[in-house]
Order: sequence, then C-alpha cells, then structure tokens
Amino acid sequence: MATKNLKDNKAHAKLEELSKKAFDLTAEGALSKDRLKEYRSDAGSLQMFYGTQRVNEETMSALQELADDSKAVDQFQSMLRGDVINKIDGHECENRQVLHTAVRNVFADLNDEKNIGKSVDAIKAAQAELDKLDKFCKEIASGAISNTVGQPFTDLVLVGIGGSDLGPRAIYLALKKYAMPQRRVHFISNVDPDDAAATLNGLDLSKTLVTVISKSGGTLETLTNETFVADRFKSAGLPVNKHFICVTGEGSPMDNPSKYLRTFYMFDYIGGRYSVTSMVGGVILAFALGYKKFEDFLRGARKMDLNSLETDITKNLPLLAAVLGVWNRNYLGSETLAVLPYSQALSRFAAHLQQCDMESNGKRINRQGEALEEATGPIVWGEPGTNGQHAFYQLIHQSETVVACDFIGFKKSQYEQDLKVKGTTSQEKLNANLLAQSIGLATGKSSDNPNKVFPGNRPNSLIMADQLTPEVMGQLLAFYENKIAFQGFIWNINSFDQEGVQLGKVLANEILDTYTEGKPADANSPSYILMKEAGLI
Amino acid sequence: MATKNLKDNKAHAKLEELSKKAFDLTAEGALSKDRLKEYRSDAGSLQMFYGTQRVNEETMSALQELADDSKAVDQFQSMLRGDVINKIDGHECENRQVLHTAVRNVFADLNDEKNIGKSVDAIKAAQAELDKLDKFCKEIASGAISNTVGQPFTDLVLVGIGGSDLGPRAIYLALKKYAMPQRRVHFISNVDPDDAAATLNGLDLSKTLVTVISKSGGTLETLTNETFVADRFKSAGLPVNKHFICVTGEGSPMDNPSKYLRTFYMFDYIGGRYSVTSMVGGVILAFALGYKKFEDFLRGARKMDLNSLETDITKNLPLLAAVLGVWNRNYLGSETLAVLPYSQALSRFAAHLQQCDMESNGKRINRQGEALEEATGPIVWGEPGTNGQHAFYQLIHQSETVVACDFIGFKKSQYEQDLKVKGTTSQEKLNANLLAQSIGLATGKSSDNPNKVFPGNRPNSLIMADQLTPEVMGQLLAFYENKIAFQGFIWNINSFDQEGVQLGKVLANEILDTYTEGKPADANSPSYILMKEAGLI
Repeated sequence: MATKNLKDNKAHAKLEELSKKAFDLTAEGALSKDRLKEYRSDAGSLQMFYGTQRVNEETMSALQELADDSKAVDQFQSMLRGDVINKIDGHECENRQVLHTAVRNVFADLNDEKNIGKSVDAIKAAQAELDKLDKFCKEIASGAISNTVGQPFTDLVLVGIGGSDLGPRAIYLALKKYAMPQRRVHFISNVDPDDAAATLNGLDLSKTLVTVISKSGGTLETLTNETFVADRFKSAGLPVNKHFICVTGEGSPMDNPSKYLRTFYMFDYIGGRYSVTSMVGGVILAFALGYKKFEDFLRGARKMDLNSLETDITKNLPLLAAVLGVWNRNYLGSETLAVLPYSQALSRFAAHLQQCDMESNGKRINRQGEALEEATGPIVWGEPGTNGQHAFYQLIHQSETVVACDFIGFKKSQYEQDLKVKGTTSQEKLNANLLAQSIGLATGKSSDNPNKVFPGNRPNSLIMADQLTPEVMGQLLAFYENKIAFQGFIWNINSFDQEGVQLGKVLANEILDTYTEGKPADANSPSYILMKEAGLI
Repeated sequence: MATKNLKDNKAHAKLEELSKKAFDLTAEGALSKDRLKEYRSDAGSLQMFYGTQRVNEETMSALQELADDSKAVDQFQSMLRGDVINKIDGHECENRQVLHTAVRNVFADLNDEKNIGKSVDAIKAAQAELDKLDKFCKEIASGAISNTVGQPFTDLVLVGIGGSDLGPRAIYLALKKYAMPQRRVHFISNVDPDDAAATLNGLDLSKTLVTVISKSGGTLETLTNETFVADRFKSAGLPVNKHFICVTGEGSPMDNPSKYLRTFYMFDYIGGRYSVTSMVGGVILAFALGYKKFEDFLRGARKMDLNSLETDITKNLPLLAAVLGVWNRNYLGSETLAVLPYSQALSRFAAHLQQCDMESNGKRINRQGEALEEATGPIVWGEPGTNGQHAFYQLIHQSETVVACDFIGFKKSQYEQDLKVKGTTSQEKLNANLLAQSIGLATGKSSDNPNKVFPGNRPNSLIMADQLTPEVMGQLLAFYENKIAFQGFIWNINSFDQEGVQLGKVLANEILDTYTEGKPADANSPSYILMKEAGLI
C-alpha cells in the first residue's frame, strides 16, 4: 500500500529539511566536471543531464527513498498489468483500468504473467486495431481505396478536440518531415465555426479523407464539426461514407459502419490525453508517415515503458524526472514547469504536455477522497527555443518567480539542410543557445549594476537525443506520460479521471437551453444576466 | 513622483487587509443581477465584465486609490508625450523614450501640446514610413512591383524572431480571414534549420517576397535565416534584391538599400514586443490585408490609447485590468494569468502576450535599482477555448493552485459560416461555453462526492466585442499593451528594457567560439563539459 499523503512518506521531513539548504548552483565551481558527468542518466536514445537541478547526494538519496516509500514503480507495474487504478476509494468514480500502455505492449511476450496480468485482452484488442490500420494503409497505397473517380487520397482532416486533437497534432507536426509525398493532415477542433471554415478553405475535398474522433461518440464540439464538414462534402456532391473514417468506442452512438468508410475502436481504459499511441493518433500518423513509421513510434514508447520498471531513480528516466519535479514543486515552491524544446518540430509538444499533465494531476483530493495538504501538478507551459529566449526568458532569468525548466535538444536537425554563417551551422547555434540557457539559469551572474544581476538557482534539466525520429518521438512522449503517472502515484491522486470538466458542461447546457427555448429557466441566473448584458440574446 | 514600491502606496495596507476577506464569489446569490451589471466597463468596441473578480466596492475604491497614488495615468501620458522613461536612476540603462504609441498617434492633432510633447518627431517619422508602405502596396497592386517575369507576388515570408515574429504572426492569424485572395504570409523565426526548411517546402519562390526584420540589424537567428533563404533564391536563379524587403533601424548594418527591394525603418524607441503596430507588423499586414485595413487596425489601437488617459479605473479599461491584475497577483497570490480567447483566430495571441507581458514585467528591481519586495509580472499562458476546456481547465477548476483568467469572446464569428446542430449554432455553443466557464470558475459547486467539489473563487474577467475585425484587434492589442505598461508603472519597474536576455547571449557566444576554434577557452567550463557529454563536439 502506497502512502496516503506526501507528508506521510518517511523522506518528507528529510526533504523539507534539505530544501532549506538546497544545493547552491551559483557557488563558484558548483557545476564541476564531476557533477555534470555524474548527474546524467541515459535510457533508450535519451540522455538526461540534471546537474543543473538543486540536488546533491543527500537529496538524491531522499528522493530515492520517496520513490520507494510511495511504491511508485509497483504502482506503475500494477497499471501496466491492468489493475483497476482509475478510482477513488469509497466514492463514485470511473473505476477503470488504465491501459494506454497496452498498445505498446503488442511487442511483449503475452506469457510474461508478471508484466501482462489482466492487460492481455487490451493487448489483443490493440493488435486487432493495428492490423486493421495496417490493412487500411495498404489499401490506400494500392488504390483499393480511392476517391469516387479512382484518384488517391492526399489530405486527411482530423475532427476531434482535447485528447483527440492536441496529441495527434503535436506528434504529426513533430514528424511531418517524414511524411510521404502528397500526404498532408489538417485539424479541426474548436467549436468556433471559424476553425472549420478556415481549415476547409482551399482543400480539394474530392481527395480528402476525414477522421472523426470521439470515444463517447457524443462530444458536442466534434459532432457539430462533423456535421459542418459533412455538409460541405454533400454540397460538393461527395458521398460522406466514402470519405469519413471514425475512431470511437465500440457500441457508441457513432459506431455505425454504414456511415463510415472504416471504423476504428478506442477503449474506455485509454484516457483521451493518453491516446496518441492508440488509433486516435494511429490513423493520421499511419496515413501521413506510413504504417511502419507509426510502429517505430510505438516501439519507442514501449522502450520507455520498460525503462519505467527500473526501481533505481538514476536508471528510470521518467521516475527521475518525476521526483525532481516533486522536489521543485513541493519543496522548492515552483508552481510552474516550462517545457522548452530546441526544435521547431516540437512547436505544439508543450501544449500537448500541458493537457496531459494538468488534466491528470490538477487535483486536490487523494485516492481516499480526502483533501490534500500539499500542492499537486504544476502549470505546464512553454514554446520552442530559441524563440522563447526572445520572448519570455526575461522573467525566468530575472524575476523572483522561480520557474523550473525542461530543455529538450537534438544533436542533428531533421531535414539536415544547414549552412555555416559566421563559422557555425544553424544547428550548432541552436545547441549553443540550448546549453547556454541551461547553464546560465543555474549559475546566474553577479554585477555592480543591479539591473544586470542574474540570481541563478533556476532549476532545470536538459534532455538530449541524437535526432527527432519517430522512434525517439515515441520515447519522448512515453517519458512524459510515465513521469506524469509517477507523480500522481507519489502524490496519491487519481491521475486518470477529469471531474473538473463537468461543471462547465452543465452550465453550458443551461445556456444552450436558453438559446433553444428563447427564454431562461431562471431569469436571475448569472448566465442569463451575462447573456443579456453581452447582447448574446 | 510615483511611489517607489507597491507597499509605499497608501492603499497597500488597506488592500492587504481586504485580501483577508476578499469578496466570496461562491456565496449564495453572490453573482446578482446588480453586481453583474455594475461590474461592467465599456471602451471603444470592448466590454469588460468583472463581477467574477473577487472585488467589492471597498476593493474597487482601494484599487482606484492605488492607481491614483502611483500616478499611473500621469506616467502613461508622460510615455505618450515622449519623456525618457526607459531608464533606471543612477545605473547604466537604455535611457530611451518609449514611443510605440507614436505610430497610432499619426491620427492626432500635432498642435495638442499637452498630449504630443516630445513625441512629435516620432509621429512624423511614423507617418513617413506609413506613406512609404502605402505607396509600396499600391505599386504591388498596380503591377509596378512584380517578379522578374512580371507576375504578381502572392506569398510573403517574414524572417524575424521574438518581437519581430510573435506579434506579427498572432495578428496575421487573427485577421487572415480578411486577407486579399492570393495573398499568404509565412514565418521563419527559429535558428533551428528545420524551421526554414519546412516553411520553404512547397513555396513558389518566384512569386515570393521575403521581409527580414531586425532593429539592430544584428540578430543572429535572423541573419542566419536570411542567409539560408537567400541561398535558396540564388539556387533558383532569383535576384535577392528584387525579392527581399528589410525592416531595420536607420543606419544599422542591414540598412543597405542596394541589397533590398525596399527598406522600412523601425526606431530605437519602439521595443520589439511593442512593435506590431510599427513597420514590423505593418509590412506583412498591409501586404496581406491591404493598407486600409492595416490603418483600421492602427485606429483601433489609437482608440484604446485615448481611453488609457481616463483617470477613473472604471472608465479606463487597460487601467482597470491592470489594477485587477495587481490585486490577483500581489494580494490574492495568483502567480499566473491564463488568457483564454474563445476564437480560433486568436490561437497565437496568448503567446504574443506571454512575450509582451513577461519580457516587460518579469523584473526584480525598481526604477531606482533597488530589489523589490513584492511580486511583479505574472506568468502568462493560455490556449483558445473551447479547446482548453478539454485540456488544462481541470487544474484551474479543481486544483488548489488559483489561476487568474481573462476570457475573450465575440458575438459573431468572422466567416459567418455556421449551422445549427441540436437547435443551436456553433457560435452559440462557443459563447455558451465561454459564459459557463467564467461563471463556473467563480461560483464553484459543492457535492457530497469530494471528487465532484469545485472550490470556486477563481477570479476572472470576460472581455467581449461584436466581431474580431482589424479595428477590434487593434483595440484588443493596445488594451493589453497599455495594461502591461500600467502594471509596470504601479510596480515602479522599467517595463521597457530586457537585460535578462544578455547572459544567455554571452554564454552562447562562448560555446560558438568553441565550435569555431575546435577547442574551448576553458576545458573545465560547464558548457564545454556538457558539449562533450552530450556528444556535440
């Protein structure tokens, strides 16, 4: 049994004590050769440098104790094996398995009882969907599936929102370089009608597939946008069921094969924000990159899932990031985490992680339904570097608000099209800035001019890989997914439900009723007053 | 003379006292009809509803006192009149005027000494650049400027970073709906070579203009990308000086008319993050939308500048937002501000404000060079709704971390292409969600199930306008620009320099030297050790 609250861990008092004299990165020689070499962990294709975190040997040993006390790795294994962990004891909750990892576990040995457990059906179901997807891709490639006049499909529009949009979009942008010629993906998510209108502008619908994604089959934004897009196809004289694919839960209101060219299934044990490796990401990624590259992406994620079973925090990269995050959040008081990839291809990765982390760990009760006393998930934000350097880094360097940072970088660019200006390539300039920021935030700088003082001691990690390939992307994604899960286990919260989205839905429906009825149920309700004041009715 | 520190204001003690019993938005009937009507301010085309902030009459009167004490409006007027306010007393600093407003002041009466003051030369210079731009647009339209075989230019690539990228990009995306047929703008900012490679992919360079923007003429990323793009033009046999435009400071290393088709000037009294209304935004917006619509955008900004001269906080919208922001940041402890536009067109507006706010107010010393005791600028982040609802709103609703929110909405969509699904249009659904979130975050909701409890008292404002047009966009931009300036005046910080970017530059240059020399100046420097460890050298 894991600890109920962060403060119940034996390591808690020790960490509180250590936080008062956290390692000073600004001291002369603090970033020594030995330190920078020692505070490095590798897993898969990723290397993590964390000498620029405010930890020393004592802190690391207390953080290991915290990981052990809270049985973080046991809990992760229990998740992987298909135990019902999406629950709050004694209270109504989703009561589900959490098995987004099953999709990656198709590469596992199903007889390995210790690691497979109750996840076996989920793995088989994942394999069946993958086989369908592989076949579908082959049919498109061979021309067995084509448009009504026998031409190949070139464009695919994803209609989905939240987990059915941000993850697929972030990964597609990250891997667009590897897309097949003449294959493009577009996204419609917002119920704002301008989103659909702008996206469809200029598309040749006759060569366009549409993937509609909603697990419940009832997401209002998605159904509305599906209707919007379907109307356009009908106006163009194109048969919707020859152009529209659907990704939904088996038996959902959308699960109607006569309406769609092909139907792929997602499952209630895969949360939207963890669904990129399922058919939610699979359909668009396999369409754009080809099925094999999507499989490479899954293999990368699988590699990180296996790494997450290590109990030593210096060997388990996601767990290491998790405990360093807890150290920064709960003991050093960083309310936010900036994710700063030095790669334009990762332009929407921080937005995806913002969703994945904040929807998972933005919680205030533990898994026994008790109010927590300690802070939980940070606010996650960020933009690619070097762009951010010219934007918001001023605050990170010189304000009193301490922001924890994750830097992400790659030795090689994706396109490998580069040139030397002033003696260095663009990639060298990019990486020079990357290292400079990691070090500068840590060490700071003194000056006689108070306006040129950099206080330093801004904790950060540097995550490096050789090149952003599909496999590396899979590793990086699972690295963060599993880090978030570990933090939830340590805080003893249920990272897998999202009750916080319900109130807004209820209130929005009241307002929609006012629109359809032409009058409110209660003329004194705040929403009706605002509707009138804002001239909306 | 303004107050030196927030705590020196007479209102400070009162506000601290009031914060202990801040208005409870969760109380039965708290959001009454009277309150929601009273806590509303209008300026230009914008309405701001702030009944969902934790203020009452007493708070508002103390906030008015704070605005008065700190002479916020006098300071704003002094900025407009061209006094040297970008300075730190007794210390080396930029010592400049701050006159991004001069571009909008071209509509003012130059004889109005009280409001024009020393800004007259800046206004005349702005007018001269606008005239050049108008002429340039006419020449493109008439065909007097065309490509080497007499075809019209259809595409424009902006090469710039930070203020020369985020603002223009955010506003272009916001107003793309109004672009002329066959006019598209693209952006290259990151020194990551993949950014340029991916952007140029598929562009017909023969019909493409390139605008290179760097005030100093020495921004490394921009010069590197300019070379990258110019190489492509040369390889395609296209003359660079017939395709490249430049926006730079007069006399900068880039100010070489023989190299460019046209040169536009920017001025050292316009900070990059405030430069959207200058030629930095002007060239691309006028190219895409036509010169007249760019002028509409400026007129909108001008309207908000005039509104910013009102001394009554309930009449001065930017000042109202500023004092509410100070209340949330310094007295109620919100470290971050989420900007949540319910409009897909504003997809990058939060990223622009993130830059504008955090680079301006992420400071730790006052204008006398003394360390401040109070918090300054918040971390600004956000994504469009309803998307965010399916992503990170969980944390805002249910975590203990209180996030202040600005909601932005519009009665009408831009494309006005809409359809009814389940009895309501998409725009109605969008706005129903907008109001629902504003109200739900304020009131919260109790429940027997602790997992369904919403604590409420999440302070937020709702900013509404009829439709996102060029003029409204100008108002909205200046609303935030001026709000940020007011907060800097109240905190007594210099919002107009950015010393925090310097340390990274110095360290990056050391690393670049190591690349060019093939060996480090100091083999024990942290950067060299990391370079080696990460396999970068």
